[in-house]
Amino acid sequence: MKAVIKEKPGYGAILADVPLPRPGPGEVLIEVKATSICGTDHHIYIWNEWAQKRIKPPQIMGHEFVGEVVELGPGVKSAKVGELVSAETHIVCGQCKQCLLGEKHVCQNTKILGVDRDGCFAEYVTVPEENLWRNDPSVPAAFLSIQEPLGNAVHTVMAGETRGRSVAVFGCGPIGLMAIGVARAVGATFVAAVDINEYRLDIARKMKADLVINANEMDPVTAIMDETRGQGVDVVLEMSGARPVFSQIFKVARPGGRVSLLGLPDKAVDLDISNEIVMRGIQIQGITGRRMWDTWVMTRELLQSGKLDLSPVVTHHLDLADYARGMDLMTSGNCGKVVLYPRGVK
Amino acid sequence: MKAVIKEKPGYGAILADVPLPRPGPGEVLIEVKATSICGTDHHIYIWNEWAQKRIKPPQIMGHEFVGEVVELGPGVKSAKVGELVSAETHIVCGQCKQCLLGEKHVCQNTKILGVDRDGCFAEYVTVPEENLWRNDPSVPAAFLSIQEPLGNAVHTVMAGETRGRSVAVFGCGPIGLMAIGVARAVGATFVAAVDINEYRLDIARKMKADLVINANEMDPVTAIMDETRGQGVDVVLEMSGARPVFSQIFKVARPGGRVSLLGLPDKAVDLDISNEIVMRGIQIQGITGRRMWDTWVMTRELLQSGKLDLSPVVTHHLDLADYARGMDLMTSGNCGKVVLYPRGVK
Amino acid sequence: MKAVIKEKPGYGAILADVPLPRPGPGEVLIEVKATSICGTDHHIYIWNEWAQKRIKPPQIMGHEFVGEVVELGPGVKSAKVGELVSAETHIVCGQCKQCLLGEKHVCQNTKILGVDRDGCFAEYVTVPEENLWRNDPSVPAAFLSIQEPLGNAVHTVMAGETRGRSVAVFGCGPIGLMAIGVARAVGATFVAAVDINEYRLDIARKMKADLVINANEMDPVTAIMDETRGQGVDVVLEMSGARPVFSQIFKVARPGGRVSLLGLPDKAVDLDISNEIVMRGIQIQGITGRRMWDTWVMTRELLQSGKLDLSPVVTHHLDLADYARGMDLMTSGNCGKVVLYPRGVK
Amino acid sequence: MKAVIKEKPGYGAILADVPLPRPGPGEVLIEVKATSICGTDHHIYIWNEWAQKRIKPPQIMGHEFVGEVVELGPGVKSAKVGELVSAETHIVCGQCKQCLLGEKHVCQNTKILGVDRDGCFAEYVTVPEENLWRNDPSVPAAFLSIQEPLGNAVHTVMAGETRGRSVAVFGCGPIGLMAIGVARAVGATFVAAVDINEYRLDIARKMKADLVINANEMDPVTAIMDETRGQGVDVVLEMSGARPVFSQIFKVARPGGRVSLLGLPDKAVDLDISNEIVMRGIQIQGITGRRMWDTWVMTRELLQSGKLDLSPVVTHHLDLADYARGMDLMTSGNCGKVVLYPRGVK
Repeated sequence: MKAVIKEKPGYGAILADVPLPRPGPGEVLIEVKATSICGTDHHIYIWNEWAQKRIKPPQIMGHEFVGEVVELGPGVKSAKVGELVSAETHIVCGQCKQCLLGEKHVCQNTKILGVDRDGCFAEYVTVPEENLWRNDPSVPAAFLSIQEPLGNAVHTVMAGETRGRSVAVFGCGPIGLMAIGVARAVGATFVAAVDINEYRLDIARKMKADLVINANEMDPVTAIMDETRGQGVDVVLEMSGARPVFSQIFKVARPGGRVSLLGLPDKAVDLDISNEIVMRGIQIQGITGRRMWDTWVMTRELLQSGKLDLSPVVTHHLDLADYARGMDLMTSGNCGKVVLYPRGVK
Repeated sequence: MKAVIKEKPGYGAILADVPLPRPGPGEVLIEVKATSICGTDHHIYIWNEWAQKRIKPPQIMGHEFVGEVVELGPGVKSAKVGELVSAETHIVCGQCKQCLLGEKHVCQNTKILGVDRDGCFAEYVTVPEENLWRNDPSVPAAFLSIQEPLGNAVHTVMAGETRGRSVAVFGCGPIGLMAIGVARAVGATFVAAVDINEYRLDIARKMKADLVINANEMDPVTAIMDETRGQGVDVVLEMSGARPVFSQIFKVARPGGRVSLLGLPDKAVDLDISNEIVMRGIQIQGITGRRMWDTWVMTRELLQSGKLDLSPVVTHHLDLADYARGMDLMTSGNCGKVVLYPRGVK
Repeated sequence: MKAVIKEKPGYGAILADVPLPRPGPGEVLIEVKATSICGTDHHIYIWNEWAQKRIKPPQIMGHEFVGEVVELGPGVKSAKVGELVSAETHIVCGQCKQCLLGEKHVCQNTKILGVDRDGCFAEYVTVPEENLWRNDPSVPAAFLSIQEPLGNAVHTVMAGETRGRSVAVFGCGPIGLMAIGVARAVGATFVAAVDINEYRLDIARKMKADLVINANEMDPVTAIMDETRGQGVDVVLEMSGARPVFSQIFKVARPGGRVSLLGLPDKAVDLDISNEIVMRGIQIQGITGRRMWDTWVMTRELLQSGKLDLSPVVTHHLDLADYARGMDLMTSGNCGKVVLYPRGVK
Repeated sequence: MKAVIKEKPGYGAILADVPLPRPGPGEVLIEVKATSICGTDHHIYIWNEWAQKRIKPPQIMGHEFVGEVVELGPGVKSAKVGELVSAETHIVCGQCKQCLLGEKHVCQNTKILGVDRDGCFAEYVTVPEENLWRNDPSVPAAFLSIQEPLGNAVHTVMAGETRGRSVAVFGCGPIGLMAIGVARAVGATFVAAVDINEYRLDIARKMKADLVINANEMDPVTAIMDETRGQGVDVVLEMSGARPVFSQIFKVARPGGRVSLLGLPDKAVDLDISNEIVMRGIQIQGITGRRMWDTWVMTRELLQSGKLDLSPVVTHHLDLADYARGMDLMTSGNCGKVVLYPRGVK
């Protein structure tokens, strides 16, 4: 089969013919219909510092997808050939304290698809049965393929109350953009969006953010405090990972407010713990992965009900063979989600 | 009446005769039975940086007390002469969003007794009726006088689940010491206590901490990780305000764990947001004041039921006139709570 | 001033000239702009069993309103002449355990405006300052006047998770109708509405219920179970008070689901505790009043943001003098909210 | 091997030699060290109405146990020979909405060990790997064998706040008795216990209930209201299943209080929904099974830490061959937990 492979350390990846993978015990073989590019895939492609430490080439890239179950490995219990599935990409142990407490997203023995084992930028991929998510075939394939990052957005937004709450999203990458739509769908009454890329701020407008701020043109703190009559917002979603943003997010959160952190700054950040966090009673949450499986139930409900429209976020549909163009788009920042089709764009 | 007054900027305070205060509209006059010294009082006494910015002498010091209502100002509705009361020291507006949402402890217009108005290191003090807390006379006066800092401990401990949870308390000042007892009383199954002062670690032992760590003698991270078989604790309570501790607390919190911050570091702190907070799904909470009034209900229940014994924490009983000795004890660190009695120690 | 008075036991009420009330200590005098008829007012008007036990005529009727503060009683602290206000109609003690725990809506010493003291079907009304709610003047007066029953709807809907949840509303009186809109605004992805009155079911359609069931024409249990592929709904809101409905609501709630009860059946109800509640892990909540003040904050956010449009619910605007026609409309059931204007409909 | 078998419809059971069971795919074979008698086993033994409908003899009885894994079926992934285990007796589907939302205890496709398949009143039993719970060998075997009903107690107690709360337990069967100890261990500051059997009330005293009420000798409502100065308790745990108790439990719950229902009344119960539930804002919860796996984590923490001593509850230790005597004890009510040992009592 054809697959995009991180063949060796260094920039780039190759498209190659590789043997069809076989599903091991408890695994299924899936024919990939659509797969989308994550920031993590891009990190691996450009071979950044994190990738150099974590990835062991050669390995098939990719982890976000929708596809059809075409073969069952030995001992598979519930999966069936023909099911239209996506996958939770975190393969967890089920035995550690976190798993037992229902906090599998912070399992201390997590393995990740496309990071710790072969991924889905390919015609076929194998996945443990426990990681499958059954899809509603009436939802467009492109949307189904991006449920995993949508799950990051849902997890972050839903990590606290949003109903009747004001929200500020810092960082309008694909997850930030989806978070705007999710926040509106789950009752937020005001959503501000902050970025410095006009292409992405345009998408933020299409996702119906109430206030769109280009941080190169105006100070986000001033803009948000003015708009909220000096009160600040109830909820801040940090989705940029940009260090300078950490000097802004606590200033726009109201006393007692929530600051949920998804972005990954590349170095340590200086925080004024006393004045910005303790004395103001701020709640901070590190967010990683998706809750298994309540986050996924939520993504399904939002997509099926039509309460969340992801059209503005999916900006590019490419043949899998055009993966390099997809990666270049990611480098430019002038894209939302880029979806790749192993059988070609129809 | 006699009162301890911060007469002017600079180190120290004086004991002086001052006119009896009159209760304003909606206020009551209280005869103080016992009053205890808070770290904040000590800051004012030694005139540290914070005090220089915030305090406007001359002003009567003190905010923790128990006393009897002796006179009602005009328009008082529910208070009665003869009631044995303490007071919530945060005087809140009741109108801002935080107050309306039941988060009065982060009211954005808070005034504090003994900080923004005359306090209770005196024979009498006036307090707004809304701030009164009715006491159970069967509880010893010394314990009643320290309910306000006990409330800080209760608020911090109770800010998340504790039942069946392991807890590490960093900082064994009076609030940290009380937090040990509170955590045990509300279902924690393991409590570690960390400090560098042996006097206070001895009290931690009396409060029945399961593991007592002198950070000058062993590494708290190693000690706690060993004791928890590498898992870390469910809950960390930061009550030291010491900056170096911030490089330890996230390492001993299990993935998905809670880190509640009460201590006030004097400068900004460097945090490895990505690896220590986001990727591990840590929950952080800034804790200030006490929830009105669920925290107080809890302090009452714990004290009345005998589930919490504060005897080891109250180390010194002094005449009010000996306030300077109390302040020296605070400077030395070789004390728990120091309680002052305007009518003398019986 | 003119006022609608329950003059004596028995059916009906009169419009009469009465002395202008004077605001007592801590109270304000309000000029009523608009006031709406509640089911409770109707009970008092028709003099049902409950009213006979609770009401002591003569008394001015009414408790839902919007108006302007025109005079301050002695000792009023924060209210100002000219403010546009509504009122929480439950006057609570602030001292009982429920009040201290922030559960003022179940204060055990509650007095109710228009039930236990003179109400607002009049040109002026007095209200304790603590019960005032500041309004946004940009919201139409009719909507502001019905925030108290809207608060019942908000309280019931918000008493548990709604985001991504399916909801069934039994009973499409005004509160049920508003609950449909609230549920949709706070993230419900499916809302079924059940009643037997076509007039009200038409309004349910206008509030955008996804499934509207006339229980006289089809079995609500069958209809809801079919629509949810046999799963049942996540949330049931019982707003009819009709006893036969209690044999339906537990059958349509999914295992682990929530059943919130606002309606007041007139007699005891038989429940199959074992099979319908215990073995299915159902959560039941009695809902009364509104949470002070988070429910009100939520009503404000929903109204200000435009996320909730109450236009279909407010069906009649009448002069206060036409109160009898309003009451007849209530008897017929062919109305939503009926709003009365002391100065006449403009 | 030897096993206690419900051979045919009707009263009783037999001890017989049966073939050693074989572990199927994903199952393990366990050598039973200790197994305890549940009320459900007793229902099957005396062949009550429920048993007649649900049980299909012949079948090995029993579901509560501790034992050692001695053989692994094909495809077993994590279990190991030699592990000391107990089992969650609810075998769930993992696919229904409840399972996906983390509410596996209300899975709609649940099968129960000893009810829907052969149980553990035997020398050996087979259990699906997913249902295993790893035990701490330092805890006595008798306590490990009763973790499943202890889990019912923990689940019920922990279904809401208990810290600083007052609790009333109606019904002092083994689960009620364990609930007393659990409530105290997790911060309850007052626990009342109600029953009519003096043998069991004596155990309630040993579990350190603060108030022990024999309902044949005094009215529980009067007794509890007196003791709580007319306020009622914060939490009621209904563990009797006795219908008359339902006219008491809502009267002793404070407004806004919680009533958790575990007992299974044999017929429908009349409830005054309006006055006892809605107008008082009561929270009711049907409780079934145990949360997977947070309830089990909690049972482990409570047992390991020594915060919960079950000694008073385990009243009888018998050879498995004496099962009939155990059943007779259950009929008499003069017992706590009865533990059976296939290899004999040591």
